[in-house]
Amino acid sequence: MQIAIVLYDRFTALDAVGPYETLGRLPGAQTLFVAERTGPVRTDTRALALTADRTLAEVPDPDIVVVPGGPGQTGQMENRALLDWLRTVDATSAWTTSVCTGSLLLAAAGLLRGRRATSHWLALDALKPFGAEPAGERVVFDGKYVTAAGVSSGIDMGLTLLGRIAGDEHAQAVQLATEYDPQPPYDAGSPRKAPRHIVERLRARSRFILR
Amino acid sequence: MQIAIVLYDRFTALDAVGPYETLGRLPGAQTLFVAERTGPVRTDTRALALTADRTLAEVPDPDIVVVPGGPGQTGQMENRALLDWLRTVDATSAWTTSVCTGSLLLAAAGLLRGRRATSHWLALDALKPFGAEPAGERVVFDGKYVTAAGVSSGIDMGLTLLGRIAGDEHAQAVQLATEYDPQPPYDAGSPRKAPRHIVERLRARSRFILR
Repeated sequence: MQIAIVLYDRFTALDAVGPYETLGRLPGAQTLFVAERTGPVRTDTRALALTADRTLAEVPDPDIVVVPGGPGQTGQMENRALLDWLRTVDATSAWTTSVCTGSLLLAAAGLLRGRRATSHWLALDALKPFGAEPAGERVVFDGKYVTAAGVSSGIDMGLTLLGRIAGDEHAQAVQLATEYDPQPPYDAGSPRKAPRHIVERLRARSRFILR
Repeated sequence: MQIAIVLYDRFTALDAVGPYETLGRLPGAQTLFVAERTGPVRTDTRALALTADRTLAEVPDPDIVVVPGGPGQTGQMENRALLDWLRTVDATSAWTTSVCTGSLLLAAAGLLRGRRATSHWLALDALKPFGAEPAGERVVFDGKYVTAAGVSSGIDMGLTLLGRIAGDEHAQAVQLATEYDPQPPYDAGSPRKAPRHIVERLRARSRFILR
């Protein structure tokens, strides 16, 4: 079982690390961080780099693909090499997944046509032009396509998919090992719950970030 | 404002990335990943490396120090260079923090004597020989010392500390931007909630991992 997690310039670190730390604990699985070129790939803040150990070409048929999102996603929407690779690996993958605006890359590759999918709450509408049906849920399964909402939702996606593949008991053991008993200090993690003026402030800013 | 996140061989990625993705969104702050040597530092699974951009010596007086945990922590308990650095930076830090078994490194440096602190649930007792008082809470404040429980709790710690420093509204905006509205598929994230046989299985394995 091979899990490929895609990196590209200005991805969001937690989008990739959430699934890595949960789904990556699949017994017997090999997790590979892949990118167009090997070496360090900088995140959106520029303060961190994760290492890509393989090129896309070196990983032609992973069982599971994970595509993170982040501000850098917009710069990849017409990246032929990446979109071609996504289409190629999707032809044989058991699961094709994304976190946050990573779903827009799956959509741009033509993989979400006619499918229910989610994305960062600020980017949900951007799925429509690609023929996907936006679903405002945290983790959305449609056949072998699994999309997660913004950034931290990749942890929930990873655990959920881990349970489907390896069984509930193994996923619960990983939840316990990572002590994933979330206790956020506020209840502001979704646009339905956060104070309205904070939602509107982020929405105003996002015109320049996501579109 | 400078935030130093410490890396060492076989740390757990999410321990470091949780605070980075939350606390690191402190306005005007510079986040630096530091280690004994610059370059890629491998995580516990060996499948991922994060880049250390600065040596410990190059960052002598950060305002906030974050020490992640992970299986590699045991190998650092007598690392004089790291423990000396922790003592030095603690002399001028505004906040000295840890995630998971990172608190054992703060304790080994003598920084938690007489203080309430937490750690991964499997490692709580290991705080006692260093004079710390184990507190089975997810995020523990004692003066400027902030310790978080296992792995994923660094997200809650990061948001909580961010709120203390930058105000509730900014922390809520970061929670919303990262869509941190956790919906774990199971309720097995703490030893009080997980099925007993899974707790015992991890406890049995931990004798070889954490002690």
